[in-house]
Amino acid sequence: MSIEIKGLHEECGVFGIWNHPEASKVAYFGLHSLQHRGQEGAGIVSNNHGELYVHRDLGLLAEVFSADEDLEKLKGHAAVGHVRYGTSGVSKIDNIQPFLFNFFDGSVALAHNGNLTNARSLRNDLERGGAIFHSNSDTEVLMHLIRKSSQDTFKGKLKEALNQVKGGFAYLLLTEERLYAALDPNAFRPLSIGQMKNGAYVVASETCALEVIGATHLRDVGPGELVIIDDSGYTIETYTDNTQYAICAMEFIYFARPDSNIAGVNVHTARKRSGKKLAKEAFVDADMVIGVPNSSLSAASGYAEESGIPYEMGLVKNQYIARTFIQPTQELREEGVRMKLSAVRGVVEGKRIIMVDDSIVRGTTSRRIVQLLKESGAKEVHVRIASPPLRYPCFYGIDIQTKKELIANNHTVEEICGMIGADSLEFLSEEGLIEAIGLNFDAPYTGLCMAYFNGDYPTPLYDFEDCLLINNE
Amino acid sequence: MSIEIKGLHEECGVFGIWNHPEASKVAYFGLHSLQHRGQEGAGIVSNNHGELYVHRDLGLLAEVFSADEDLEKLKGHAAVGHVRYGTSGVSKIDNIQPFLFNFFDGSVALAHNGNLTNARSLRNDLERGGAIFHSNSDTEVLMHLIRKSSQDTFKGKLKEALNQVKGGFAYLLLTEERLYAALDPNAFRPLSIGQMKNGAYVVASETCALEVIGATHLRDVGPGELVIIDDSGYTIETYTDNTQYAICAMEFIYFARPDSNIAGVNVHTARKRSGKKLAKEAFVDADMVIGVPNSSLSAASGYAEESGIPYEMGLVKNQYIARTFIQPTQELREEGVRMKLSAVRGVVEGKRIIMVDDSIVRGTTSRRIVQLLKESGAKEVHVRIASPPLRYPCFYGIDIQTKKELIANNHTVEEICGMIGADSLEFLSEEGLIEAIGLNFDAPYTGLCMAYFNGDYPTPLYDFEDCLLINNE
Amino acid sequence: MSIEIKGLHEECGVFGIWNHPEASKVAYFGLHSLQHRGQEGAGIVSNNHGELYVHRDLGLLAEVFSADEDLEKLKGHAAVGHVRYGTSGVSKIDNIQPFLFNFFDGSVALAHNGNLTNARSLRNDLERGGAIFHSNSDTEVLMHLIRKSSQDTFKGKLKEALNQVKGGFAYLLLTEERLYAALDPNAFRPLSIGQMKNGAYVVASETCALEVIGATHLRDVGPGELVIIDDSGYTIETYTDNTQYAICAMEFIYFARPDSNIAGVNVHTARKRSGKKLAKEAFVDADMVIGVPNSSLSAASGYAEESGIPYEMGLVKNQYIARTFIQPTQELREEGVRMKLSAVRGVVEGKRIIMVDDSIVRGTTSRRIVQLLKESGAKEVHVRIASPPLRYPCFYGIDIQTKKELIANNHTVEEICGMIGADSLEFLSEEGLIEAIGLNFDAPYTGLCMAYFNGDYPTPLYDFEDCLLINNE
Amino acid sequence: MSIEIKGLHEECGVFGIWNHPEASKVAYFGLHSLQHRGQEGAGIVSNNHGELYVHRDLGLLAEVFSADEDLEKLKGHAAVGHVRYGTSGVSKIDNIQPFLFNFFDGSVALAHNGNLTNARSLRNDLERGGAIFHSNSDTEVLMHLIRKSSQDTFKGKLKEALNQVKGGFAYLLLTEERLYAALDPNAFRPLSIGQMKNGAYVVASETCALEVIGATHLRDVGPGELVIIDDSGYTIETYTDNTQYAICAMEFIYFARPDSNIAGVNVHTARKRSGKKLAKEAFVDADMVIGVPNSSLSAASGYAEESGIPYEMGLVKNQYIARTFIQPTQELREEGVRMKLSAVRGVVEGKRIIMVDDSIVRGTTSRRIVQLLKESGAKEVHVRIASPPLRYPCFYGIDIQTKKELIANNHTVEEICGMIGADSLEFLSEEGLIEAIGLNFDAPYTGLCMAYFNGDYPTPLYDFEDCLLINNE
Repeated sequence: MSIEIKGLHEECGVFGIWNHPEASKVAYFGLHSLQHRGQEGAGIVSNNHGELYVHRDLGLLAEVFSADEDLEKLKGHAAVGHVRYGTSGVSKIDNIQPFLFNFFDGSVALAHNGNLTNARSLRNDLERGGAIFHSNSDTEVLMHLIRKSSQDTFKGKLKEALNQVKGGFAYLLLTEERLYAALDPNAFRPLSIGQMKNGAYVVASETCALEVIGATHLRDVGPGELVIIDDSGYTIETYTDNTQYAICAMEFIYFARPDSNIAGVNVHTARKRSGKKLAKEAFVDADMVIGVPNSSLSAASGYAEESGIPYEMGLVKNQYIARTFIQPTQELREEGVRMKLSAVRGVVEGKRIIMVDDSIVRGTTSRRIVQLLKESGAKEVHVRIASPPLRYPCFYGIDIQTKKELIANNHTVEEICGMIGADSLEFLSEEGLIEAIGLNFDAPYTGLCMAYFNGDYPTPLYDFEDCLLINNE
Repeated sequence: MSIEIKGLHEECGVFGIWNHPEASKVAYFGLHSLQHRGQEGAGIVSNNHGELYVHRDLGLLAEVFSADEDLEKLKGHAAVGHVRYGTSGVSKIDNIQPFLFNFFDGSVALAHNGNLTNARSLRNDLERGGAIFHSNSDTEVLMHLIRKSSQDTFKGKLKEALNQVKGGFAYLLLTEERLYAALDPNAFRPLSIGQMKNGAYVVASETCALEVIGATHLRDVGPGELVIIDDSGYTIETYTDNTQYAICAMEFIYFARPDSNIAGVNVHTARKRSGKKLAKEAFVDADMVIGVPNSSLSAASGYAEESGIPYEMGLVKNQYIARTFIQPTQELREEGVRMKLSAVRGVVEGKRIIMVDDSIVRGTTSRRIVQLLKESGAKEVHVRIASPPLRYPCFYGIDIQTKKELIANNHTVEEICGMIGADSLEFLSEEGLIEAIGLNFDAPYTGLCMAYFNGDYPTPLYDFEDCLLINNE
Repeated sequence: MSIEIKGLHEECGVFGIWNHPEASKVAYFGLHSLQHRGQEGAGIVSNNHGELYVHRDLGLLAEVFSADEDLEKLKGHAAVGHVRYGTSGVSKIDNIQPFLFNFFDGSVALAHNGNLTNARSLRNDLERGGAIFHSNSDTEVLMHLIRKSSQDTFKGKLKEALNQVKGGFAYLLLTEERLYAALDPNAFRPLSIGQMKNGAYVVASETCALEVIGATHLRDVGPGELVIIDDSGYTIETYTDNTQYAICAMEFIYFARPDSNIAGVNVHTARKRSGKKLAKEAFVDADMVIGVPNSSLSAASGYAEESGIPYEMGLVKNQYIARTFIQPTQELREEGVRMKLSAVRGVVEGKRIIMVDDSIVRGTTSRRIVQLLKESGAKEVHVRIASPPLRYPCFYGIDIQTKKELIANNHTVEEICGMIGADSLEFLSEEGLIEAIGLNFDAPYTGLCMAYFNGDYPTPLYDFEDCLLINNE
Repeated sequence: MSIEIKGLHEECGVFGIWNHPEASKVAYFGLHSLQHRGQEGAGIVSNNHGELYVHRDLGLLAEVFSADEDLEKLKGHAAVGHVRYGTSGVSKIDNIQPFLFNFFDGSVALAHNGNLTNARSLRNDLERGGAIFHSNSDTEVLMHLIRKSSQDTFKGKLKEALNQVKGGFAYLLLTEERLYAALDPNAFRPLSIGQMKNGAYVVASETCALEVIGATHLRDVGPGELVIIDDSGYTIETYTDNTQYAICAMEFIYFARPDSNIAGVNVHTARKRSGKKLAKEAFVDADMVIGVPNSSLSAASGYAEESGIPYEMGLVKNQYIARTFIQPTQELREEGVRMKLSAVRGVVEGKRIIMVDDSIVRGTTSRRIVQLLKESGAKEVHVRIASPPLRYPCFYGIDIQTKKELIANNHTVEEICGMIGADSLEFLSEEGLIEAIGLNFDAPYTGLCMAYFNGDYPTPLYDFEDCLLINNE
């Protein structure tokens, strides 16, 4: 079962725009800044006076839209786009979003970031009633629920459907007349509204996408909210009152771009603060602080600043990233051939190193990096992690491994330290992380979902109830 | 004329290996770490018991070698590879290296990093004598000179030819029996020898390529040296005694990867020292220091460390780099749509910024970044450049613009400051740069070619003598 | 409306196989011989112990399956395949068959040759009930009807669904346990069963596909029959008793390959007989008989043999056919630049020609060929058509134009003769065609649908009732 | 050695045009009609006011020029094009023509149909003198000879070079100011001049290329002639007086398109006459005559007409030809799976067949076809070949196998008949073929090279002298 669960989890990015003469082009640039949220596939649906056009494919955005024509055929004043996270095995074009549905009474495009916890039950029920699904994504479920709804209006049907799906979701829907954006009742996933200089409204997974298109940030979408955008502007309604803020902590720690703000908190700044906190909680004397590029550089510079130990570039990441690479054979790997990350011998040789990373999942990457540093002559490697140990899976839209695979689920910090070959290892505390991020929403979650660290899931798990048990076996 | 000069200049990367059962695969991983030196095209020639095989094409390495078969057909125990820098307009497969020449009496592969100053004269002379060239690269000239030579041995012919070509060059030649590496008499371009765990010898443009394949650095190739590698090991001869060290300063400032060492100096460390030097020479009070990613981060952290001003991530570079992108239209650009670089509003808003960059060429990029920062709310932007003003073109292998296009050729620092919209602007001094890099070779150049800053070219310019005059018009 | 009707009509080819270790490979070779029935796209679904795999794409079969891996991943002992006819405008991968449907309770693949007359009504009804369609092909309707059926077994559901769809259809369905083949109650489209040397059963649109894979022809599928193939052999049931034979006459005249047999009649032989009949009905004295390649060569040789006039190669067709070609500009066309068909000046110059063609649709092709022959020096061109004038559209699966576009709908034979520039023009009579084909089924149709010639449609037209009226305006 | 000889031999097509505003487009359409002469690769070089542009690649013409842009970038009023025959193993882009040479004093494009007999000697001599070759085609030799020539003018150099190369050749050269066409002293290969309606001059390998572009045939190029075309019209000079007509008989028998005329003789008509001759020389009673598509259909219809035996379509060739196909495995082949050719069971079953083919090379194809016919129920298969037995290789430009591989070199007609499984086998006599083709040039060859049949080569063989001996071993 664990494999299937893994396959269902995904982190993605969505972008929508209404009322811009080059809507699909703006969507392209917005999505480009969200590429870190998904590299398996990308797509855009445009709306040209009520006619919807789609272009989507496997690959990075620049591969999917490799020619000007790919965008030029997506005419119209409105668009929604999607970048999809790649989980091996289920990579096929049928799963690439946005989905475009054509009915005798109109067309609808749908894009989704998140993961439903009751998708399988809903899907089986729908299939028993004669429904035919065309992807193995859980996104399609919402459209079936909309079409089955007995409400009168599209908005009514949509609200009814949103109350049936459970889990984490940020949905964008583009119809012939409107752009809709909906967020789950816990605000697990980020979603923000902005406005361009020409007045066009945009909705995006992260505020970095607003920045790159020159848009002003208006507000974040709140839990249980439904945003409706059309030519008369935007209005915000709710589809449920049973809401709270439990934003995914991993967005701050790892996923989001450092230049994005979530709930008003800049991600780089939160990470730097967590590095400072870490320096206070887990100081060690050394010659230099280095970060694991790219996501840990902010935390590392925070640790350095707080501790007064110099911040150095001890690891270099090859910046030429392709989706697929020819990999070294086992023999070559044993000879020391590597691809992505290099230790800087000229910097680390003979030095005592504090290596700051954002998190440890299975421990293999950490072990490899510690080894890299030692092979390049580092005298000591002290690992400091700017988040607490990961002990529980996520069911709301990120591909964190099952409990079994999480090294911290089965091992003490001391054991992990030995397994990764570090001279010492310490994690940031839960309180430290919460304070560093600094949200101030209501209890019990005060704004953050920390379930991966403490197993405290803000919702029932429905189809995944068994997973926690199974993982314990 | 200026356009043609630009077209001829190029910075590339070379990699060679002898005596490894998976030679072409190792070459692939070595070249991947040299990808920053050239993104237009790539190729590898392998040597399988005297038979030479080639695969080369336009594109990034991962595009050129997109399938395992592409490498598997390059069987053999030896290989040379090349990544080529893209200068617009002359992009065609005929120019992608290594070149493979088949003769009735044997085959030779040739790869070249650098630029000749007398290529046009030599080529015209050779064509007058009946020679036929197949590329418009100056690399082919060497092979014609070798074939025309009346010496008895291949080595003798090669040495004679090396004495005829002038300028900057690092050549790799693979014959059926040997791998040759030759460096120009000024050592303009870097070139290092290493040895793998299995005993295989490798030669590469930068030491980072030795690191990623787990090879030990043996020594750098010196000016006027010819390295000869075969099954009995490697020997080093010279083809001329008229040599000196004048390593291209731009390799330290901008081109080389921070984890490489050149002449024993680590590039990151040299850059960080130049940042510290800059903080001493050109201090200004501010709230934070930020670097322009990626090449200026080392200098920026040096400036921060020396000045005691916090180092922050004020600019973010999109890490998903493709060779070609759909570009924003002029209209979208005016609305503020950007692609590669974003200012981090949450960090810079309301702050006084010291923005450290490695160099200013035409000034357009600097102006754009200063504007980005101001649009994102920066109160002041003080630009500090970790190298002296660029005033002269380079003829030894890097694509620095003609004098006319160099903003510092025609304008004072004060004028440039106004043009880029900065609140203040200062450059590192020549002495400061030399000291920061810290080479200790003999006078007059003490190891560094600084011609772009002071016009003091270490060699005659041959075909380019007129360029300096013309540019002055 | 006419454009939409055109888009819905299509001629395709289907192929199914059960119980062969290389099922998908055999399907590939079978489909290759059916490529003349559809060039827009192709696909195969295989069944490997109950798991269904699909590969399909736009393009010719050899383009869709361009690498051995494309077939090798379609493992299993059973397969269905499809080649699709290209009608401009609706060319997108979502419409390429076979469709593969995955349900929680099993998977089904579906391939269809034909056209339904009540697809739009059924689809709208289904959508009103919440159904979501993913293609704009009418094929998907059958699967929705199956899933909605309240019958107990798959076979029961399928039979119920087959009684709801109207028009022309040859369906192949592949489930985890069985291969089903169903033919419409009028046997409009051909469908034959064969057996390979290893015992495997195959079903194909034409017998030529049986020949190329070395299979023996067992029998043709009859109207209203449902063939069920599994590991225990094949059985034939009926889903309706309300049947008759009204095989599409155009299969004999134009569509089918000359080496196929339909209802026991060889297509080449039928065409040759129609040529002979034509020579008797419409003799004219001349120097030679020529056929329009490739479909009219059989009729032309029949005309020559009967009349005693020599059969010559007066027209040559370029055999290098791609799906898409760069087309001559209007200017070049006026200078006489052509692509596909050439007149043989050395043969026709100064000669009186009888040009035999299979049919005239809009008249433009005939006019162009007559002109070609005259420009190459033909003294006289007498056009003889081996079928009656086309006056009515087809609604059962072939893309014959609407009435308006059919030249014979609005013009007398004499008028057409003038319009195409021929010296004389005659058509084969309806009786002549029926006799030449020589089927012997029961009245009223005696085996042949001749509706395009006489408007006598063997079924009600449902959604297309209006078309005949509209076309008369 | 035999393998290498095979690799060097090739049949190609050339096309040149001067003075047409859409020169490269016309070249494209002309080359499309010459596609049967070469399917490995294609290319066009255009001349736009002295600037030469090239586009060439592996593949069929429609693959190489797949987008309008591919032609649109080839601007200019003149062009030369080439289609290349594919011999396995040497398929690489460097060998695809036209070759484009850029010199400091001008550019030249070169296209070649034929094979030189002294290419290797010339090449080795040139390499010893320092020349560098970039393809393994023998075409490049001519350009080296031109550049080495001490004559004053390009025309003078070209004539000198043409006197140094030996064998069969039709060359097209495009310079900045002129289009040159040259034919070898024996006129082995066909080459014709035509004029378009707008006055543009064209030169093409076959007259079918003149027909498809609406050009009038002016004259064929004669042996030893050099055609010079520029804005002032065309002039014809000779570069040698030592000439005779010995046109390759295989052009009439197999290679050329039936609608082409060579030396005033229509190819279809020559083939039909050879079929009639064959019927007289080798009559046999049977139920029908069938031809092997496509090249033997003319001869078959001639045999039928002369003998009075009906001409039927007993074999069908799949018209969807791609360069590469997935091939049946050995197992499938044994089950009877085939790709290209099908016997028509409905026609041949129970019948006595006369199967007419144009030639027998290794006998494997004939054996396969006889077997196909018998498996489809043919009672008797009498094979009649419309040319004499092939006993000797060709060195002038067609890829006829070495003596060893030619079945008629080692076996009597009786033996061959047994080997191919025919009920009887007869070949056309040499005299019969000569008479059927009907050329009337001077003795000794009276216009035809028949060396493959009788070993009487019209020239010395130079580098290939040994081949005949070696083949006899």
